[in-house]
Amino acid sequence: MSLTHFGEDGAARMVDVSAKPETARIAVAEGVLAMAPATLALVREGRVGKGDALGVARIAGIMAAKRTADLIPLCHPLPLSQVALDLDPDDAIPGVRLAATVRTTGRTGVEMEALTAVSVAALTLYDMLKAADKGMVIGGVRVRLKDGGASGRHEMP
Amino acid sequence: MSLTHFGEDGAARMVDVSAKPETARIAVAEGVLAMAPATLALVREGRVGKGDALGVARIAGIMAAKRTADLIPLCHPLPLSQVALDLDPDDAIPGVRLAATVRTTGRTGVEMEALTAVSVAALTLYDMLKAADKGMVIGGVRVRLKDGGASGRHEMP
Amino acid sequence: MSLTHFGEDGAARMVDVSAKPETARIAVAEGVLAMAPATLALVREGRVGKGDALGVARIAGIMAAKRTADLIPLCHPLPLSQVALDLDPDDAIPGVRLAATVRTTGRTGVEMEALTAVSVAALTLYDMLKAADKGMVIGGVRVRLKDGGASGRHEMP
Amino acid sequence: MSLTHFGEDGAARMVDVSAKPETARIAVAEGVLAMAPATLALVREGRVGKGDALGVARIAGIMAAKRTADLIPLCHPLPLSQVALDLDPDDAIPGVRLAATVRTTGRTGVEMEALTAVSVAALTLYDMLKAADKGMVIGGVRVRLKDGGASGRHEMP
Amino acid sequence: MSLTHFGEDGAARMVDVSAKPETARIAVAEGVLAMAPATLALVREGRVGKGDALGVARIAGIMAAKRTADLIPLCHPLPLSQVALDLDPDDAIPGVRLAATVRTTGRTGVEMEALTAVSVAALTLYDMLKAADKGMVIGGVRVRLKDGGASGRHEMP
Amino acid sequence: MSLTHFGEDGAARMVDVSAKPETARIAVAEGVLAMAPATLALVREGRVGKGDALGVARIAGIMAAKRTADLIPLCHPLPLSQVALDLDPDDAIPGVRLAATVRTTGRTGVEMEALTAVSVAALTLYDMLKAADKGMVIGGVRVRLKDGGASGRHEMP
Repeated sequence: MSLTHFGEDGAARMVDVSAKPETARIAVAEGVLAMAPATLALVREGRVGKGDALGVARIAGIMAAKRTADLIPLCHPLPLSQVALDLDPDDAIPGVRLAATVRTTGRTGVEMEALTAVSVAALTLYDMLKAADKGMVIGGVRVRLKDGGASGRHEMP
Repeated sequence: MSLTHFGEDGAARMVDVSAKPETARIAVAEGVLAMAPATLALVREGRVGKGDALGVARIAGIMAAKRTADLIPLCHPLPLSQVALDLDPDDAIPGVRLAATVRTTGRTGVEMEALTAVSVAALTLYDMLKAADKGMVIGGVRVRLKDGGASGRHEMP
Repeated sequence: MSLTHFGEDGAARMVDVSAKPETARIAVAEGVLAMAPATLALVREGRVGKGDALGVARIAGIMAAKRTADLIPLCHPLPLSQVALDLDPDDAIPGVRLAATVRTTGRTGVEMEALTAVSVAALTLYDMLKAADKGMVIGGVRVRLKDGGASGRHEMP
Repeated sequence: MSLTHFGEDGAARMVDVSAKPETARIAVAEGVLAMAPATLALVREGRVGKGDALGVARIAGIMAAKRTADLIPLCHPLPLSQVALDLDPDDAIPGVRLAATVRTTGRTGVEMEALTAVSVAALTLYDMLKAADKGMVIGGVRVRLKDGGASGRHEMP
Repeated sequence: MSLTHFGEDGAARMVDVSAKPETARIAVAEGVLAMAPATLALVREGRVGKGDALGVARIAGIMAAKRTADLIPLCHPLPLSQVALDLDPDDAIPGVRLAATVRTTGRTGVEMEALTAVSVAALTLYDMLKAADKGMVIGGVRVRLKDGGASGRHEMP
Repeated sequence: MSLTHFGEDGAARMVDVSAKPETARIAVAEGVLAMAPATLALVREGRVGKGDALGVARIAGIMAAKRTADLIPLCHPLPLSQVALDLDPDDAIPGVRLAATVRTTGRTGVEMEALTAVSVAALTLYDMLKAADKGMVIGGVRVRLKDGGASGRHEMP
C-alpha cells in the first residue's frame, strides 16, 4: 500500500479527482475539551447569559470549516452546503463535547471539514478559558460517521 | 471569577492589552495522532524518501500558526519571531507525537499559536493517511510550557 | 416566524441547502458615500488622470465579493460567475453612488456578495479620502434587485 | 489639495509611514441597520435565548476588524490591541445601532478597522434576517471619535 | 480589439461567464529559478535528506494555486480537481525548473492557477536560498499547455 | 554552508529572529512581462482611459505584498510601512517593466514582500491580457536593492 497524496517519485500533490462523480456527502466528527470542574462551571454560567463562550466557539468552528482547503495543503476546495456544531458541557469528562456535521455535493468527502470545525471550535473555547485553567486538554478528535462517495458508509464503533 | 473575553453585559470582545508591555514570550504545545501500526509504518517509509508526510504536515502547522488570529475570534494578532515543529513517530502510541515551539515579542502570550500549529499539523497528517486508516484519533493537545509576560513561567507536569 | 440560521435549541448554523437545485441567480445592491462638495471635486479630478480613487475602490469591492463567505459566518461559499461595480459621482448627494451586480449558478442567492462589494468599495473610497474629509458617511446600503431561486424576483421600490 | 494615496504620476500606493512614531490610538465608529418592527422583534427574541443573532454579528465584526488591511488595498497592517462592538436594538429606528471601538499602538489610525467592524457586523445581521425582511438598509456608517497620532482628537458632533 | 476585463466605460469587472458550459480543463505552466552553481548544490544536498527545500516549495505552490482568485482581482473562483508541481534541479541553467499542472471542471480556464503555483513555488525557493545567494532570478514563467473550453487546445512551441 | 530554514535534523522551520533588533529596512524588486507589440498597444490604450490594466495590476501587487507571510511558508509576518509599484510599458522589450519598493521597521528584510508584489502584479496583468496574447512570459524577477539590517546594503549590478 502507498499514500495517494504522493506520486511515484515521492512528490506531494493534490490528487486528481476530476473523473469522480459529484455525489451527496456527509461527515460527522467529534472531540472533547477536558477541563477542571470549576472551569466547566464558568462555561455553564456563560450559557445562561453572562458570556456565551459556546456560541463564540460554534461560530469559529463553522467559519473554519469553510477554510479547510486553505489550511490543509492537499485538501480539495469544496462548496459546503451545511455546517452545524453541537457543543455540550458534560460533567462526566468534566469538559465540553463537540460534534460537527458537514454536508456537500462534491467529488471528495468532507471528513477534513468536520474535523477542522471541531478542532478550531475547541481551540476557541480553550482561548476564552485559558486565563482560568492552564491544564485543559483537547482529545478524542475523530470521524464518527462518513457517507457518500465510492467508499460508502462508515460508522465508527 | 469571570471570563475576561466577555464584558459586564456578557458581550464577547477582544480584550484591551494596550497597557501591557511588550515582552519576550515562548510557548510549547504538544499532541498525538494515534493510528494503526500499519499506518505508522507507511509514515516511516515516506520519511525515507517515497513521500514525506511529516514534512508536509510541518509546513501546514507553521503556516497555521501565522493565521491563528484569523481563525480564533478573540485572539490578538502577533508578529511571530519563531515557529518550529517536531513530529516524531512513536511505536508506543502507536502514532506520531507533535510538538510546536513559538516565540514572539509582544503584549500577549503565544499558547494559541502553538496549539493551532499542533492541531493543523495533526489534521494535515490525518488527511494524507485517511485513505489507509479510518480509525485515527487526535488527542493530548495541550500546552506544555509557557513563559514571558506578567503571569510568569508555567511548566506542565 | 423564526430565524432559519438557528436550530430549535437556538444554536447558530450554516443551513442545509443540499436539497435545493442549482439555478441562475442575480443580485444588485446599492449604497452611497456622502461627502463634502470639495471632497467630491477631488474624486472627480482623480478620475481624469491624477489618481483614480474610483478605480481602486472598484477592485476592492470585486475582491471582497469573492471573500463574502469568509467574512460572514453563516454564508454559503458560492463560485461567482460575474461581479461588476458602478461608482458614480453625484452632486445631488454630494457624494458617490455605488451599485454592484453579482451573478452565480448555485443553491443560494448572491445578495450578501453584492452588499459586501458595495460596502467594501465604499470603505476603500473612505480610506483614500479620509485625510481630506472627516465627516463622510456611508448609507443607503440595500438590495435593489434579486432574482433566481425558489423565492422568485424581488425588485425594491 | 491632493490625495496622499496617489503619487505625482497618479499611481496608487500604500503611503510611507516609516518616519511616524508609534503612538496609542483609538477610533469609535457607528452605524445602523434599519428594519421592519416585526424583524426587530425577532432580534429581541433571539437575544433572550432562541438564537443570538447579535452575538454572531459581534464575532463577525471583531474578526473583520483584524482583516481590514487584507480588504482595503492601501490600508496599513496594524497589530490591534482591542476590538469591542456594541449592538443595541432601538425601536426609534426601528433597527439595531452598532458601535465599534478599536485600539492599537501604531503608526497609523484605526478608523478603517472600526468602520470595517461596524460594516461587517451589519452585513452579518442582514444575512441572518434577510429571509424575514427584504427591505433592510445599512446607514449612518461614520467615525464618531478618533484620537492619537499627529492630527489629534476628533469628536464628531 | 479590446480587453474583456473592462466595460465600455473602461471600468474593470469580473466578466460574466454564467452562460458558458462547465467543461474539463487543464493547464500546464512552467518557469525557472536561476542561481549560482554552489546554491544549486545546496538544493541537491537538501533533497537527499538534510532539508528538503523543493518539498517546501511544492507545498507552497499547491496552496497558492487554491488561492489564485483571492490574489488576482478579476479571476473567477474555481474548485480545482488537481494540482501537481514538478521541481527539477538543472545544471544547464544552473537552477531549478518548475512546472505546474492544474485541472478543473468549470466555466473558465486554469492558466492563472498554474502560473500562480509556479510563481509562488519559485518565490518560496528564493526565500529559503536567499541567505546563500543574492543574485537569483525568476524567469521564463509562461503557459506551456492549455486545453478544454471554447478556445480549444493550445500547446506552446 | 547550510540553509538556515532547516534544523540540524533537516526539518523546515521559521527561524528565530527574536534576538535581532528592529531596524528600518527597504527592498526594491523588479521584473518584466514580455508580450507581443500589439498587446502592448492595448495596455497603452487602456492607460489613456478605456480600461486601466496597469492600475488594476498595481493594486493587486500592493495587496499581495501584505499577504507575503501567508503565501511563503517560512517567511516572518511584518507590519509594512510602505508599498509602491511602478509599471512602465517599454517598446524595447516589448512589454511592461515592473518595480516594487517596500519599507518596514522590523527584524527581517522585505525582499520577499517586494518580489511577491512584482510577481502578483505581473500575474494580474497576464490575466487581463491573456485573451489577446497566449505567448506572454514573466521574467527577470529579482531583487535590485536591499538595505537595513545586519547584512547592510546590497545593490545589484
